Amino acid sequence: MFYVIGLGLGDAKDVTVKGLEIIKKCDRVYLEAYTSILTVGQESLEEFYGRPVIVADRELVESGAEEILYNTENENVAFLVVGDPFGATTHTDLVLRARERGVKVHVVHNASILNAIGCCGLQLYSYGEVVSIPYWTDSWKPDSFYEKIASNRRRGLHTLCLLDIKVKEPTLESILKKRKEYMPPRFMSVAEASEQLLQILEKMLESGAEELAFTAESLAVGLARVGSDNQRIVACSLKDMKETDLGAPLHCLIIPGESLHPLEIEYLLQYATDKEKFEEMTKRKESH
Amino acid sequence: MFYVIGLGLGDAKDVTVKGLEIIKKCDRVYLEAYTSILTVGQESLEEFYGRPVIVADRELVESGAEEILYNTENENVAFLVVGDPFGATTHTDLVLRARERGVKVHVVHNASILNAIGCCGLQLYSYGEVVSIPYWTDSWKPDSFYEKIASNRRRGLHTLCLLDIKVKEPTLESILKKRKEYMPPRFMSVAEASEQLLQILEKMLESGAEELAFTAESLAVGLARVGSDNQRIVACSLKDMKETDLGAPLHCLIIPGESLHPLEIEYLLQYATDKEKFEEMTKRKESH
Repeated sequence: MFYVIGLGLGDAKDVTVKGLEIIKKCDRVYLEAYTSILTVGQESLEEFYGRPVIVADRELVESGAEEILYNTENENVAFLVVGDPFGATTHTDLVLRARERGVKVHVVHNASILNAIGCCGLQLYSYGEVVSIPYWTDSWKPDSFYEKIASNRRRGLHTLCLLDIKVKEPTLESILKKRKEYMPPRFMSVAEASEQLLQILEKMLESGAEELAFTAESLAVGLARVGSDNQRIVACSLKDMKETDLGAPLHCLIIPGESLHPLEIEYLLQYATDKEKFEEMTKRKESH
Repeated sequence: MFYVIGLGLGDAKDVTVKGLEIIKKCDRVYLEAYTSILTVGQESLEEFYGRPVIVADRELVESGAEEILYNTENENVAFLVVGDPFGATTHTDLVLRARERGVKVHVVHNASILNAIGCCGLQLYSYGEVVSIPYWTDSWKPDSFYEKIASNRRRGLHTLCLLDIKVKEPTLESILKKRKEYMPPRFMSVAEASEQLLQILEKMLESGAEELAFTAESLAVGLARVGSDNQRIVACSLKDMKETDLGAPLHCLIIPGESLHPLEIEYLLQYATDKEKFEEMTKRKESH
């Protein structure tokens, strides 16, 4: 049997009772550790589970289905995923490979950032398509996510922006040398994401765009470590978000729709860094 | 302290370890039982928790914030919600009322249908706005959800349709008599939802609509009891879905975007009732 178990978003105790029971009885347990992270690491999980855990990095998951699925016809193997199991396509692929071998697959769901962002008070049913904001490099500055945010916003929908995670990325030198060396892990902050969004807005203004779906003065909501005890939520303008430090990862950013529901405004107000500015920003939207 | 604890989607063991610890130590525990249901009832939960649970129906939650929040300044009170805590606006409102009283609120997240639908293989990042399909009556047949599905689909996005739940709805007679009598609970099936969607498509064709975003022959995905041991997923045309019985509630329906990713097609294929028709339906979409 092959189990895919969501761990939720916070610490070791965010696993479900069902998930924990399975983890304890499995022959091998893998921890997927490159598409997301908990607030605790491998050691805390091993201590809480009372058993060893094998960390599965990108290489192992994307090319090592054979190793992970080895003997799942006869043994119980668990694959642990931060959040919910179906957050990344590689997990979907693993499940398919298991079924191809005729192995039964059992999924244990858990919270994902897609629903946990409800904690900021913006209604989950008013979100449009999710976007991912990647780290720019000097020569690679993709901006297609802007159009998606704009399109959501014009339809009155909020956009959840998932921010880039770079874990165990080989250095350019090591690729050339064919000897594996890795860059230190990087997790995009709400400040970095806002900075990139502001650059896109500027570029559009320079190129003569007449009507922007949102501006540097529009409301943004920054969230850090959602679901953990030291979760933080901040509501301010995109420009101010660029100067906001929400601390340790993971972060995500929301660009709310143009017009907010009164209950959304009332709820978000508690996270406003500047209540007056917040009322101004949300009033302007309501009058549209 | 006021705790809002998500129970996930399946049975009693889908609560998180953190959630269970809190439930056991609370002075009062309410179970919200009208916006969604688990596959098990109050008795199973009480047995698993080893403590009594107070069922909170719509009346209590929407008008009884005072009762639920009573003495939360000094006592620990938990409010249990099927899925994730922020699925319904009334829960958001309860949290606000608690904070107004100066009571600390702690949220324990869990899986919600919004992320658990990843189990059918359609990528979570390719969903547009969620819609709700309400039960029609003889005189009330709203169809605004059609436009949202169509708009998502034109943008290449899938639509999750949440299906109506009627629990403890007063009968018309009892409203007139001012004596409370309730209708038996109803949970919309994928067949019923498909039937309403087909009626909308027919009406649009009759009124001369030239291009429909989807037709009776388009692919639909029906899901029942997601996250439970007897979960069912079926992929077939909307017309065939009308004749499909997926058994006990809860159901939900997905209208996929026009063009699917090869991995989505490969994954969905295992749920196709008619593989040949399925390949035809998904091929047509890819060629767009």
